[in-house]
This record gives sequence, C-alpha cells and structure tokens, in this order.
Amino acid sequence: MENFTFYSPTKFVFGKGMESEAGKLVKAFDGSKVLIHFGGGSVVRSGLLDRVKASLDEAGIPHIELGGVKPNPRSGLVYEGIDLCRKEGVDFVLAVGGGSAIDSSKAIAAGAIYDGDFWDFYCGKPIDKALPVGTVLTIAAAGSEGSGDSVITKEDGMFKRGASGEGIRPKFSILNPELTETLPPYQTACGITDIMAHLYERYLTNTKDVEVTDRLIEALLITMKNEGPKAIKNPNDYQARANIMWAGTMAHTNSCGVGRSQDWNSHNIEHELSALYDCAHGAGLAVTMPAVFRYVMDHDKARFTQVAQRVWGVETAEEGIDAFAAFLKSIGMPSTITEFGGKEEDIPTLVKSLCYGDGRDGSISGFVTLNEEDCANIYKAML
Amino acid sequence: MENFTFYSPTKFVFGKGMESEAGKLVKAFDGSKVLIHFGGGSVVRSGLLDRVKASLDEAGIPHIELGGVKPNPRSGLVYEGIDLCRKEGVDFVLAVGGGSAIDSSKAIAAGAIYDGDFWDFYCGKPIDKALPVGTVLTIAAAGSEGSGDSVITKEDGMFKRGASGEGIRPKFSILNPELTETLPPYQTACGITDIMAHLYERYLTNTKDVEVTDRLIEALLITMKNEGPKAIKNPNDYQARANIMWAGTMAHTNSCGVGRSQDWNSHNIEHELSALYDCAHGAGLAVTMPAVFRYVMDHDKARFTQVAQRVWGVETAEEGIDAFAAFLKSIGMPSTITEFGGKEEDIPTLVKSLCYGDGRDGSISGFVTLNEEDCANIYKAML
Repeated sequence: MENFTFYSPTKFVFGKGMESEAGKLVKAFDGSKVLIHFGGGSVVRSGLLDRVKASLDEAGIPHIELGGVKPNPRSGLVYEGIDLCRKEGVDFVLAVGGGSAIDSSKAIAAGAIYDGDFWDFYCGKPIDKALPVGTVLTIAAAGSEGSGDSVITKEDGMFKRGASGEGIRPKFSILNPELTETLPPYQTACGITDIMAHLYERYLTNTKDVEVTDRLIEALLITMKNEGPKAIKNPNDYQARANIMWAGTMAHTNSCGVGRSQDWNSHNIEHELSALYDCAHGAGLAVTMPAVFRYVMDHDKARFTQVAQRVWGVETAEEGIDAFAAFLKSIGMPSTITEFGGKEEDIPTLVKSLCYGDGRDGSISGFVTLNEEDCANIYKAML
Repeated sequence: MENFTFYSPTKFVFGKGMESEAGKLVKAFDGSKVLIHFGGGSVVRSGLLDRVKASLDEAGIPHIELGGVKPNPRSGLVYEGIDLCRKEGVDFVLAVGGGSAIDSSKAIAAGAIYDGDFWDFYCGKPIDKALPVGTVLTIAAAGSEGSGDSVITKEDGMFKRGASGEGIRPKFSILNPELTETLPPYQTACGITDIMAHLYERYLTNTKDVEVTDRLIEALLITMKNEGPKAIKNPNDYQARANIMWAGTMAHTNSCGVGRSQDWNSHNIEHELSALYDCAHGAGLAVTMPAVFRYVMDHDKARFTQVAQRVWGVETAEEGIDAFAAFLKSIGMPSTITEFGGKEEDIPTLVKSLCYGDGRDGSISGFVTLNEEDCANIYKAML
C-alpha cells in the first residue's frame, strides 16, 4: 500500500424526504444567498425544485435559479452562472440534479471567486477555493456528490476535461433514493455502469498488497451486480435504489481507492466518445470497459481472474470480462459505439483528441500506458 | 435501509513517517498551543514522542505534555488534563497512542471548555463542543481515530461508560502502520479482535435490505481474517499492518454501518469485564463474542449463516461462530474469562452493573434484548 491522505468532509444526509433539510443545511454551512442550479424538466415537473425552494424559504435564505444544465455540461452555462453569482452576491451554490448539475455547480462555484478564466482549472490548476457547494442528488451515478472533481465540456472544440480540488468538495449532499425512482431504466442503467466504472478504475492497480481496498471495491461491485437489475426491473424498489445510491457515493469518495495506483483509462477513452457523439457517459463506458479490459488483460491476468472469481463467480479472467459485458447488455446498455452513431472514420479524430488533448504527448497512462495505436485498436474493437 | 446522516470530516494522513506532518496539521486546524497526551513507555522509548515534538517545534507551535494514560483510561487523569489545559491556555489536544490515549484526550478536550463535570458527557449528554483533537495512532484497534466516541472508566465505582458527539471527532489522524510493528503479538491480537468486534456489532442488525453495508462489513472482516495472522506471525509485515490499520479505521467511521440498527451488546457485556478485571478490551471481547453469538443465533439464523458462508467459508451458522472462535484462539486470544481472573461468584456483580448501570432498567438492548437472566447465562458460558 502506498502513502495517502483521505479527507472526505462532506455531510451526507440520506433517506426519504431529506430534501426538506436543504435550508437548514445551507444555513449550517453559512450560506446566506443561494444559486440553485439544475437541469430542467424532471426537477421542475416532479415538484422537487419547489420543495427545495420551500425549505430555503423556511430557513429564511434568499435564492435565485439557473436551470438548463445538459448532460456533459457545457462551459457556456458555467460562464453564465459565474456572472450571475457575482452580480447577485451569491455565496452558496446548491446543485439539484445528477452529476451534470453538480459538476456545473462546482465550476460556477470555483469561477465565481477566481479572477481568471474558470477553464484554467480544467487545464490542471487545482481548485483550492470556491464558493461552498451543496447537492440534492437525483441520479446515482457520477459520485460527484462526494468528490472534489468536476468534468466540463468546452463548447469551443468540444473538449471534455476534468478539474479537482478540495474547494469544490460538497459541504453537504442530500441523498434521497426516492428521487431516483422516476428515472427511466436507460438512465438508471447508465448510472449503474458509471458506478461500476468508478470501481473498476480503482480496481485496476499496479500497487501490490492492497487486500483491504480490493475487498471493499469487490463488495461494492457485488452490491451493484445484485441490486442493479432489481432497480431496472422495478424502478420503485426503494431498497435497491438505496443500496445503489450509497454504493455509488462510496465508490467515489475514494475510501476504497486509497493507497493504490488507479487506472482511469476507460474514463479518458470514453470522454472522447461523449464529447464527439454526445452519448450518455454511462453508455459510452459500457462499450469502452470490456474493450479496454480485453486489451490490457494480459498485463495482470491474476487481477482479472481475481475479480472474475470473487465478483462474477466464474473461473477465468476472460469469463469475468464476458460476464461483466453480458451484465451491462442485460441492463440495456449498448455493446458497440455504432449503436450511438460511432463510425470507423472518426477513430483518427478520437485518437488525436485523446492522445494529444489535455497536454498529453501521444499516449494515456494508467494501469497500462496506451499509445495512439493501442487507442485506435481499442476504438476499433468497439465498432 | 433506514434514513441516516454520515459525516466523517477527519483528515486521515496515512503511511510511513507521517508523524512528521503533525506540526503542519495542527497549524492547518488552527492549533496554537498543544497538549500532547499519551500513555508512557513505548511512545517515549521508541522516539515517537520526540519526533512529534520536533514536528511541532518546526511549525512553531508551543506544547506541553501529559503522559500516564492507562488501558481502560481513568477519570482521574482526565481531570488532571482539564486543569492543565485551562491553566496553560491549551487550544489543541494531540493524542499520541492507541484508543486509550485518544479517548482520554477527547474527554480532556470536551471537559476543558465545559463548565460542569466532564462526567456529565459520559452519562448521556452529547459532546457538541470541545477543543480540537488530533491523533497519532500507534495501535490499530479502537477506531477512536475516526470516531466521535470516547470510553472512560470512572475510578469511583469503576464504571466504564461511553460518550459521543461531533465535538470530539478528530480533526486529523496520522496513521503510520510502522508504529504498530513494535506491538507485541498479544496486543496486536487484541486490536484485531476489537476491529472485528466493531464489524460484528454492525453486522448484527434487525434492518432488512442492507446489501451494501453487509458487503462492506464482510469485506473488512475478510481483510482481518487474511491479514491479521500475517501480522501476528511477522510483526514487521508492513503491508499486513497497513491493511489492518485502514480496515480498523474504516470499521469504525461507520460508513459500513449506516442505515441499519446495530448491536453493541457484546461491547456492553465486555465493558463490565474490563472494568472489573482490568483485562484488555480485545481479550474481553474475544471471550464475549462467541458466547453472545451462540446465545442469540436463533434470533436470525440466516444472518449468522450468511456471514459463515461469505466470510468464514463454512456452511452453517454454528460452524461460522466456531470458525470465528477458533480464529481468535489461533491469534492468541483467551477463550474463557477464567484466563484473566473471572470467577463464577462475580457474575451477580457483573450482571447488576451491566443491567442497572448507565441508567438501564434491568436489561440491555441491541440485536436482541437481554435481561438479567440472559446476561448471567452468557457470563456463565464464558467460564
């Protein structure tokens, strides 16, 4: 195990009806004027936005709103939010939604008190300071409710890049599994896939002697394997939704990923897909992971065999990857990029953006370092 | 799953040599004058105390010392520490040691800014405010480094009681597995037992549909089962020590115990043993748990069967308890209270203190409610 620091000072308030605590929580974390930031449609239609506003009103906290966050959230709306916060003297950003609303909120919170262009943070500058952020989570997926990370797509060039820092770690996150019951099965499945990707990215390590984190990751993978299909079959299965939601948060606070190198190549490879095709991140990951795993398996076959046996109940590394791919298909995820518009002729574009974007010099590194040829082979295997 | 709040804002700094960060960490959490609180012997002899002092000196933070904490820490030293903090204007308490030094530090930190008798907190008053506490952990066991709990023994009557509150949750905890390499096998085994007890107390729940927390607890139990014996066999096995240390912290921050009822009857039954016989808490637990589990097994045999199969690799509930008892014996723990001076004629005293102490009215409640007769039967089974 390697040396590490683990710091997860987010207050998680979990359970039925907990969005009614939003006002009290904002107050407890010294918010006095709130920007509520969200996507649209369902948050409004379901009455959730009204309940959150009522809770803020009850706590005597003024609030303004900015909706319109899209999946793969864009820089344009972030600039708008930053201007709004400055103009209106906002001192707390409350995200209501999934990973996109939260990531966009984090970007706004960081940019609002930064003199330069917020995109600097998405080019490698750590986010030490930001307006405090809180979240009311509506999709178990991204884990952004418990992380110090954010991913934004810059509209000029459609670059999808991440930023990190303690400044944007949420002060509190309200996790009410009921709010996820209205998600369509496809979005539920995308969330399940994203959570499992966060676990596999941590599982694929080159660090030895990591029994405790191996076992914790496996525990969460098994949970997703068992509870995921229940939520797909019966969207109103509160208990399955609850198990998935806590697993999703635990998957990404990093308590199960400390002290070990991690991979994140699948995420990087996928980011190019959702940037170019605007596919759901989870759907892109469902196609990417089996292709990547098959490509890198021989680097540490024992590790792939271990997860095959402990999580999937099969014998060999190959069978474990097949079982995972079959699981993803069974919950309704795509198996090829063709299914969301991927084309062979785009591969050079994908590879170039992947291997040379974000300051990279022709390869991506993780569990295995992958050069342009490797990445092209992996994209081809996804057709 | 039940509704819950999970809040673990302790900064964990883990790995080799990390005690050299103590000064920087105290400074980051606004400490300007520190009480270093510790047991004695080994912390001094090993040079750890000197290294911690050097780190504080380097950060320009004045410090005073109070040693002498004993296992099952006593109220007398707490009163002494409180007086010292007030007299010297201490604003940060730094525990260097195991659960006893940490729990005593927490009591001092709470009492130092409280007008009444600190024992009020150990009679049920929640600890909302205290001086900030940091820890340099030397024994993987109690989990106090990541909890808002403290257990102190009142010398007048030898009552062992717990207190809780967000005020005493450590601001930071330095976890250097190297520091545990000098522990004798018996103390290592006591720590392993205590960690496993924290896991079993959470595992024994009456809440249904808790897949995610069941799996997380099992992951940590398996880790202890696999790594514990390595540390007993080779005290200098850094990797085993590291896996145990993180498992011990994760076992007690409660991320694996949220949203479910918990037991804690074994801890309560054991507290009477260590109060009366001054046995090590872990040794008391090693005797208590199998006796309690056999007594309550029929309340939910499926649960005991589940842990037997998933953790111990055996078929039945009975075999699972036997396997756990055999494991505890194999690492050098006692199997009967007779081994540390327990006598049949003490049982009425133990039962009376257990069932009527701490404001109880003749029984203890947890996974199963146990009355005086039940408790007497359980103590008898431990002879």
